[in-house]
Amino acid sequence: MTTHGWQGDVRSILRVAERFRLADLDPGATPGYEGDKATGAKDLAKRMARLDDLQERLYASSRAGTARDAVLLVLQGMDTAGKGGIVRHVLGSVDPQGVQLRAFGAPTADELAHDFLWRVERRLPARGFLGVFDRSHYEDVLVGKVRQLADAEEIERRYAAINDFEARVAAGGTRIVKVMLHISQDEQRARLQERLDRPDKHWKYNPGDVDDRMLWREYRDAYETAFARTSTETAPWYVVPADRKWYARLAVQELLIAALEDIDPQWPPATFDVEAEKKRLAAS
Amino acid sequence: MTTHGWQGDVRSILRVAERFRLADLDPGATPGYEGDKATGAKDLAKRMARLDDLQERLYASSRAGTARDAVLLVLQGMDTAGKGGIVRHVLGSVDPQGVQLRAFGAPTADELAHDFLWRVERRLPARGFLGVFDRSHYEDVLVGKVRQLADAEEIERRYAAINDFEARVAAGGTRIVKVMLHISQDEQRARLQERLDRPDKHWKYNPGDVDDRMLWREYRDAYETAFARTSTETAPWYVVPADRKWYARLAVQELLIAALEDIDPQWPPATFDVEAEKKRLAAS
Repeated sequence: MTTHGWQGDVRSILRVAERFRLADLDPGATPGYEGDKATGAKDLAKRMARLDDLQERLYASSRAGTARDAVLLVLQGMDTAGKGGIVRHVLGSVDPQGVQLRAFGAPTADELAHDFLWRVERRLPARGFLGVFDRSHYEDVLVGKVRQLADAEEIERRYAAINDFEARVAAGGTRIVKVMLHISQDEQRARLQERLDRPDKHWKYNPGDVDDRMLWREYRDAYETAFARTSTETAPWYVVPADRKWYARLAVQELLIAALEDIDPQWPPATFDVEAEKKRLAAS
Repeated sequence: MTTHGWQGDVRSILRVAERFRLADLDPGATPGYEGDKATGAKDLAKRMARLDDLQERLYASSRAGTARDAVLLVLQGMDTAGKGGIVRHVLGSVDPQGVQLRAFGAPTADELAHDFLWRVERRLPARGFLGVFDRSHYEDVLVGKVRQLADAEEIERRYAAINDFEARVAAGGTRIVKVMLHISQDEQRARLQERLDRPDKHWKYNPGDVDDRMLWREYRDAYETAFARTSTETAPWYVVPADRKWYARLAVQELLIAALEDIDPQWPPATFDVEAEKKRLAAS
């Protein structure tokens, strides 16, 4: 484990337990981390070098054609939970060439004409890449359930389909890190209020966010069911308290580092004769 | 113009003139910039906020559905010229969500079965995005010409095809910024040598780089012909001396800022009734 303010293994601390209830986890808490916003910002900056080094090694293997592994970060959460901030402040520190970012919006007509996992399959990260899903196939058992976009039987089918899908993806070498950013209703109100108050934030506001907000309990239940049904050994769910942005960023950074350390990517060996190339270069 | 060490308009300074010769521009020079590596690093950091703000405004318009413009940065140069460093250190400072990075390698069988612009068309940035081509359709008149992957008549046809293509893309609202990173043969040797000396850099080395290096003059000629034939009013070429990485990054950053300032992207107006939404939020 690290000595960067974390008082234990971040995965054990944040992983959802059986019968986990969102109400039992304070969105303003900072579980496992000893420190405040200032030390959090410092630790985030400090750990960037580690994340960066691991990610570069992974990417190197993709370039050398030896990559067998990938990382997929799945980001979920109510509107304003901070998904964009994670992308920017955590993923922004690594080489953009090795990151594959995919945002999932409402499905297109073409996507709706296929199984819900069709569009997901196409956007999985290639070997050697760090993929990020800004929303994901989980929308199909969250908004899909809450707004009854599919009938109960179909929603039911999807949990099993997701588990099979993720098991196959994991068996193919992709570490799946599923994160739910957990904010409080009060914090969401404040963030939405800011988007309404500032003209330079209007573009981030969507009246549908308030519609969803009015269904807070239904979403909470849908999340809890999703955790219960799809948190598996190979692809567990982590719930990250997100009222404090600095904590959420730090926690996701640490989860990514842990996933990459599992892979332990090595610099690929030269696929050419180094000494011969040195001579060719000297002669050129 | 800016007061950040630039002694004039960076576009006028770096734009290729008629009958431009690479030999006339010292790859170690820092045209238009008063300062050294230390001030350069400081200015790069200082100007990030400006690039970031402009890019966020552009991206906001894409989210609001009002985007009409895009920026496309085309990066060319001999191996080790620093394309990856530009992506990382210049583009790395803006929100990854608004950047569409595309690397062009040797064409696949499927791509070869189409016109050379087919794969390029598909990778153009969407409105509201900042697109980056790491290599591009210019490879088809550079390596394509030097290694005679196509006959002379076909190469000839391509210059005109590129101009027509870029004119259409520009008319559609995309600012095309074409940059050739200009390094010296000595600097390239030093950079390749480092890749051979360090096992953690071996993955960046490709024996083909030395093959290309041995054709330095042929590439130089091919670049000069490409400039002469495809540097147009709507899509001019800029040649950026790149032996000093800090200068090249600073220059490309400034070229991007200039392109975005031309667009002058505005925060999109609210598409909803702000006061009504404030009431709905308060009641939720």
